[in-house]
Amino acid sequence: MYKDATTEEINEVMENAWEAFHQYRKMSLKDRVGFMKSICVELEKISEYLVRMAMSETNLPEARLKGELARTIFQLNQYGTASENGQWLEARIDTAVPDRKPPKPDIRKMQIPLGPVVVFGASNFPFAYSTAGGDTACAFAAGCPVIIKAHPAHAQTSEMVAEAILKAAEKSNMPKGIFAHVHGAGFEVGKQLVMHPYTKAVGFTGSFNGGKQLFDWGNQRKVPIPVFAEMGSINPVFLLPEKLHQSYTETAKMYAGSITLGVGQFCTNPGLIIGIEGDDLQKFITTLGKEIEQVTPEKMLHPGIAKAFDQKRNTALHQNKVSTVAVSVLEKNENEGIPTIATVNGSDFLSNPVLHQEVFGPYSLVIRCKDINEMVEVANHLEGQLTSTLMATENDIEENNELIEAVKDICGRFILNNVPTGVEVCLSMQHGGPFPATTDSRFTSVGADGIKRFARPIAFQNWNNQFLPDELKNENPLGIWRTLNDELTKAPIV
Amino acid sequence: MYKDATTEEINEVMENAWEAFHQYRKMSLKDRVGFMKSICVELEKISEYLVRMAMSETNLPEARLKGELARTIFQLNQYGTASENGQWLEARIDTAVPDRKPPKPDIRKMQIPLGPVVVFGASNFPFAYSTAGGDTACAFAAGCPVIIKAHPAHAQTSEMVAEAILKAAEKSNMPKGIFAHVHGAGFEVGKQLVMHPYTKAVGFTGSFNGGKQLFDWGNQRKVPIPVFAEMGSINPVFLLPEKLHQSYTETAKMYAGSITLGVGQFCTNPGLIIGIEGDDLQKFITTLGKEIEQVTPEKMLHPGIAKAFDQKRNTALHQNKVSTVAVSVLEKNENEGIPTIATVNGSDFLSNPVLHQEVFGPYSLVIRCKDINEMVEVANHLEGQLTSTLMATENDIEENNELIEAVKDICGRFILNNVPTGVEVCLSMQHGGPFPATTDSRFTSVGADGIKRFARPIAFQNWNNQFLPDELKNENPLGIWRTLNDELTKAPIV
Repeated sequence: MYKDATTEEINEVMENAWEAFHQYRKMSLKDRVGFMKSICVELEKISEYLVRMAMSETNLPEARLKGELARTIFQLNQYGTASENGQWLEARIDTAVPDRKPPKPDIRKMQIPLGPVVVFGASNFPFAYSTAGGDTACAFAAGCPVIIKAHPAHAQTSEMVAEAILKAAEKSNMPKGIFAHVHGAGFEVGKQLVMHPYTKAVGFTGSFNGGKQLFDWGNQRKVPIPVFAEMGSINPVFLLPEKLHQSYTETAKMYAGSITLGVGQFCTNPGLIIGIEGDDLQKFITTLGKEIEQVTPEKMLHPGIAKAFDQKRNTALHQNKVSTVAVSVLEKNENEGIPTIATVNGSDFLSNPVLHQEVFGPYSLVIRCKDINEMVEVANHLEGQLTSTLMATENDIEENNELIEAVKDICGRFILNNVPTGVEVCLSMQHGGPFPATTDSRFTSVGADGIKRFARPIAFQNWNNQFLPDELKNENPLGIWRTLNDELTKAPIV
Repeated sequence: MYKDATTEEINEVMENAWEAFHQYRKMSLKDRVGFMKSICVELEKISEYLVRMAMSETNLPEARLKGELARTIFQLNQYGTASENGQWLEARIDTAVPDRKPPKPDIRKMQIPLGPVVVFGASNFPFAYSTAGGDTACAFAAGCPVIIKAHPAHAQTSEMVAEAILKAAEKSNMPKGIFAHVHGAGFEVGKQLVMHPYTKAVGFTGSFNGGKQLFDWGNQRKVPIPVFAEMGSINPVFLLPEKLHQSYTETAKMYAGSITLGVGQFCTNPGLIIGIEGDDLQKFITTLGKEIEQVTPEKMLHPGIAKAFDQKRNTALHQNKVSTVAVSVLEKNENEGIPTIATVNGSDFLSNPVLHQEVFGPYSLVIRCKDINEMVEVANHLEGQLTSTLMATENDIEENNELIEAVKDICGRFILNNVPTGVEVCLSMQHGGPFPATTDSRFTSVGADGIKRFARPIAFQNWNNQFLPDELKNENPLGIWRTLNDELTKAPIV
């Protein structure tokens, strides 16, 4: 429907973004927040139409899309507020000691924006991780212009959101070029955007192959740039013996819900459940199977995702020694993902890397370990994950330190007696994890700490107070927290 | 003198480091600091011998080496203290809201160490950026074991420092493998260390070619890792018209000192001075030339560096339209760097990339721009820098916003009316800058914020208080700053 952007169009977009960057970064934090809140207003105005369009493009149900749009607006507000409160600026001031030998100069440091950020829309979150989503909100909060590469699976929704952002930009007197929206069905547009010299960072949520390619391009540039790719994960859940014994039924029911939530199309979907062979695990598997059999298959995001799920699910089910535990007994229509549970024993899992791969959809594999040592071995063999979960009693935790340390090594969020689906938008959230869950485990793509992905520190040495940014002036006119001669304070310098 | 480490030795070292990591990271911040302070004690015990050995290996004078060793000890102390005060942990707590729909879980986030860090000794800092230097101190502070690849130009000094660290480790009951020292004259040992699966980060200070190679290896691994390479810079100094008119003589004298400090062997050496053609600039050049002519040539670090200086200096001086302003008139002996100033006009500089390259040693190029617009053009054409300096009056600053923004874009530390040499060790320091000054402009290699290079966040969701790390417990037993429900506080949670 939309034409791919041409090289000329991309160059123009990037030149405008570069120019806008030099104006936007000089605007106050208040102006940035004003712009972000104005995007919220514009999105709210057309929320009904947005949801309707997204429904037509993605197969996602109305309630989910309404919730997701609300979350998108919440993120814009929350990251805007965080931008203004200024903790992310990491303001550090060391005042001069002129009579030291040699004299100690006055040095003041803060985060400044990196420059234009290219964001790739995510197929599974048409609002919250696409055009006005988390990466965009973080980049605007940091002081960076944003160039969106629309996801082709919801290009019209993306176009509508882009119009809302541009309207907000105009009303807030933002510079032309603060935001641009680009279409591209193939990989060429994405590559040109990542390789453009004015691009200073990239945000992406999607597949491993897509994210890794962007990461490689980012590193192969003459001037490498950070590429923050969130590439999904299988989110292992470790069932510890005492906990399993006490609550196999509740655990099974809770996980049947988590595995099939949103037709399993979340990057925090629990794709791997690891227990120790025995009666309790068998009861857990039986209950989980019964629950799954009763879950209605639903349409997946788009035919491509449904097809990929079918293929990967079939490949997984046909691996040596894998047996199918349960498949929904309810009728499956075209493009629907059919809830499925399979099982395999620990040693067969360990020796077959195919089983370590994500099956994006309502599928989970239960691993039957022969003992706790094998469970530790499984943990040690898993790749980096967004989340890991322990289902454990206090005794389980006290007795299994080695396992807990191994599980901690591989994840960004470590959950106890809960499910990994449901990613809270708050400052303490870590949505990121060791490679290949993301390309950079040191940053998060959910929560206001995500702003820091798009900033770098600069130190001002020996500057007159009047020429310093407000954030670093003696008077502390913005009233932000600053580390002054090693002490955190909001006090002015007198 | 020392044999290159074999693959077997490297594997053993890395396995020990991996094991030590799992013990060291569980030790308290207090234990970490104890270990770091104990390294200081051991270094002080043998300080005389260390300085003597470093003098014999590097040609650096006694006073400089004594100062550098003192700085090394200062860094270990300062980063240890910073580790304990816990700001770098970025502790964030959002408490549960069980009656929200859906319930909001308790989430608590903090930084945890990445794992074993490989550090490459720097040729120009045998103490402060080598074996017990800044990268090592930051890694220990973060909770990471360190593997040093000794710089072959001061391998014996490195060996002595390593013995001191190992002694301190033993006295502080650190796990075996917390520190290892490896020799390697060629690139093979370095490559194996960077590519080893247990290596989780790399620190390097040195040449562009060396650093870029490590960066590429780090990204080409199956699991990419961060490589923090500080690769030097030409540290441009912009002389603005009013300031130059008011103080060409003092400025010239100040810069003659900065250019030749330590035989120009600092990564913050001012290699480029940019002014506007005219009487004032001519007077500045004349005075600078006279000063430089009187500076005694001194021995460079080692014959290889002296040879490279000669070659690069000659290449630069023989470029089209470059004229030599001044060369020290004092006798030059073998392996000495001869203080030199050259000049070229703006357009010839802009069209010749050879002149944009660092000449590591006591050399600086004065660029004569035809007007302020050409000066802006020069700023826009420069690559990323560790520092940039403005010599400017208040009027100069007010009238030249475009220039100031362009200069800000390219540097990590932005200095006003001062010299770039002399890197203060303090929290507000930013020693890092856009590529190619470093491989990652978001981090610093001087100051306690450098600790954050070797850590990543983890979020604990729904954990019982007793199983949380002390840093995140309700009681706040360590008394550190934490962001509790969006407010910074040291208060416990009641």
